[in-house]
Amino acid sequence: MARVVTLNGSPSATSRTAALLNDLARTLAQQGHEVVRLNLRELPPGPLLAAQANEPAIAQAVKELEQAEGVVVGTPIYKAAYTGLLKAFLDLLPQFALTGKTVLPLATGGSVAHVLALDYALRPVLSSLAARHIVGSYFILDKTITVHESGKVELDATIEPKYRESVEAFTESLRIHGLHGANSASAASR
Amino acid sequence: MARVVTLNGSPSATSRTAALLNDLARTLAQQGHEVVRLNLRELPPGPLLAAQANEPAIAQAVKELEQAEGVVVGTPIYKAAYTGLLKAFLDLLPQFALTGKTVLPLATGGSVAHVLALDYALRPVLSSLAARHIVGSYFILDKTITVHESGKVELDATIEPKYRESVEAFTESLRIHGLHGANSASAASR
Amino acid sequence: MARVVTLNGSPSATSRTAALLNDLARTLAQQGHEVVRLNLRELPPGPLLAAQANEPAIAQAVKELEQAEGVVVGTPIYKAAYTGLLKAFLDLLPQFALTGKTVLPLATGGSVAHVLALDYALRPVLSSLAARHIVGSYFILDKTITVHESGKVELDATIEPKYRESVEAFTESLRIHGLHGANSASAASR
Amino acid sequence: MARVVTLNGSPSATSRTAALLNDLARTLAQQGHEVVRLNLRELPPGPLLAAQANEPAIAQAVKELEQAEGVVVGTPIYKAAYTGLLKAFLDLLPQFALTGKTVLPLATGGSVAHVLALDYALRPVLSSLAARHIVGSYFILDKTITVHESGKVELDATIEPKYRESVEAFTESLRIHGLHGANSASAASR
Repeated sequence: MARVVTLNGSPSATSRTAALLNDLARTLAQQGHEVVRLNLRELPPGPLLAAQANEPAIAQAVKELEQAEGVVVGTPIYKAAYTGLLKAFLDLLPQFALTGKTVLPLATGGSVAHVLALDYALRPVLSSLAARHIVGSYFILDKTITVHESGKVELDATIEPKYRESVEAFTESLRIHGLHGANSASAASR
Repeated sequence: MARVVTLNGSPSATSRTAALLNDLARTLAQQGHEVVRLNLRELPPGPLLAAQANEPAIAQAVKELEQAEGVVVGTPIYKAAYTGLLKAFLDLLPQFALTGKTVLPLATGGSVAHVLALDYALRPVLSSLAARHIVGSYFILDKTITVHESGKVELDATIEPKYRESVEAFTESLRIHGLHGANSASAASR
Repeated sequence: MARVVTLNGSPSATSRTAALLNDLARTLAQQGHEVVRLNLRELPPGPLLAAQANEPAIAQAVKELEQAEGVVVGTPIYKAAYTGLLKAFLDLLPQFALTGKTVLPLATGGSVAHVLALDYALRPVLSSLAARHIVGSYFILDKTITVHESGKVELDATIEPKYRESVEAFTESLRIHGLHGANSASAASR
Repeated sequence: MARVVTLNGSPSATSRTAALLNDLARTLAQQGHEVVRLNLRELPPGPLLAAQANEPAIAQAVKELEQAEGVVVGTPIYKAAYTGLLKAFLDLLPQFALTGKTVLPLATGGSVAHVLALDYALRPVLSSLAARHIVGSYFILDKTITVHESGKVELDATIEPKYRESVEAFTESLRIHGLHGANSASAASR
């Protein structure tokens, strides 16, 4: 089983991005993965914006990321791209911080018009961090997400199979790279 | 003459981006423009990351931007894109905050390899804010920038003419849209 | 009045992109502009793909573009970007072929999900050609376009005002740069 | 061992892109892979630009691609993006033509300034084709490539290790997905 970090780039405490990531974190934990949830809006904002990677809470978050084999990057789409909050955290990471890691980009948004922001805006940044495998990113329209009181997230029937497929591609990549760890590490991209 | 805002998206107090924008602000002021300098790293970080547009210092910055005819957007290139600090500010603006405005994107960076980040990453975001005219963006390699003790900025002779051309395209656009204000406002894009 | 070229990047003889550009060409001609229609699919395909800019029909097309003050670039969105046909033509142009020109990017597509392709894919390419002013690009959903037998194009009422605004921003830019030609030419970006 | 297709998107018969892909094809064949070389400029240009996927030579190329487990996509960078020739071929493929395939994007260019074109322009298009794994793309400066008379390609010592790493990430991904074929096919992204 793998170590997975979920990175929540939403500035809102009650966002659908947060609900989605929390639900996914539970699912991954039930499958036996060790999951750490990082809510970027809970990091100290001054040091975060000043890129002070040695501030204790930030240093801890960077370390969790460093130790993970898989990273789920979640963000709402604002102004045709990822949030400034998410980018502020990515900015303070070491240059090739995602080397050897599998990454699942997820976004939520109010309009289908934002779909391409994941592939055109977020992926190039994740690529620059030398992610080994960025699996098919997935964009979820806000109105197709139902958050139950229990925290359980339900997706419209038209969406759910595709979303599950993205998540399975992520866990499958973690699984097979886990089996071939030594080799695949040496073959890390970049 | 026009009202111009310079937006400094660098998290560093002593960045070349800041030196460049300050030098440009002086030049524009000498030409008779009314220039307001916004250093985004001086805004309160908590409210900025939480997108609290009504926090007084942030509300004032948004208002300055709203009243400007021209906006210079300056950012270093981190991780293949603009800074999270810059994006956090853009995130809290109204949806079409740049309607009717002329925008000059400037970036500084350590490697020529980052040149395309302006056109592929920053411009789409500025477009989504409905900027009327985004003039030719300009990327300046760190090592071609000399900052004198007086604050005066000198660029390598190979760079300087191109940079001056970008700035002139910006002021020329401000001038002619100033002369044709009523019409050009009604014809604002988007 | 200005010289305008419409570039049709659709490989299909009966595309909505073609209908839209033809309709716009008529409107611009009625306003007194001199309009040349370039249907890229009518250029000889072998020389076009081999970037033979001196093939007579291609050389003529390049010359028409060179003499234009305004360029409307129309393309359907295929595979998250402009067509290969359009790019093949742009590839054989001189490096700064759009210097001093005003450009209106238009796209048609079957899904709102393609909207960002204009700003993230087409604009950076047009920027690299040193376009002076790329006005607000406009994406039009196929199903909102009705082509009458006369060739007249009608857009859904929800779309039409925004589209007209983009076209007006284009003609307004042509008008005011026409009045200020000498200066604005010298201040061409890049 | 895997079936690999090399797609050469250069319009030039004697390009460095072609030399690089041919050299890589030899290397992969020596490792036991079954390699098919597709030179897109040899496909019939008229049907290619008209997206006639049923033209025999084009249909054959599409079929080779369909049967491959790995695809090397090579292109020079023109006007800040991939070539029109490459895109014309991608345009006529089925919507999810790269489902379940591992892809290695390679580009050559005259200036380091084009580096980001791979991640910002080519990858989103490959993603839209549902590639399962796009390994770290690699950009190679023209002047670092030496083509010997034998056809053998030599890269500058500063470049060679990084390039080899990208190629190894590609073959490693082919290897481990080959071992886990059934599962990984079912987990194909998108």
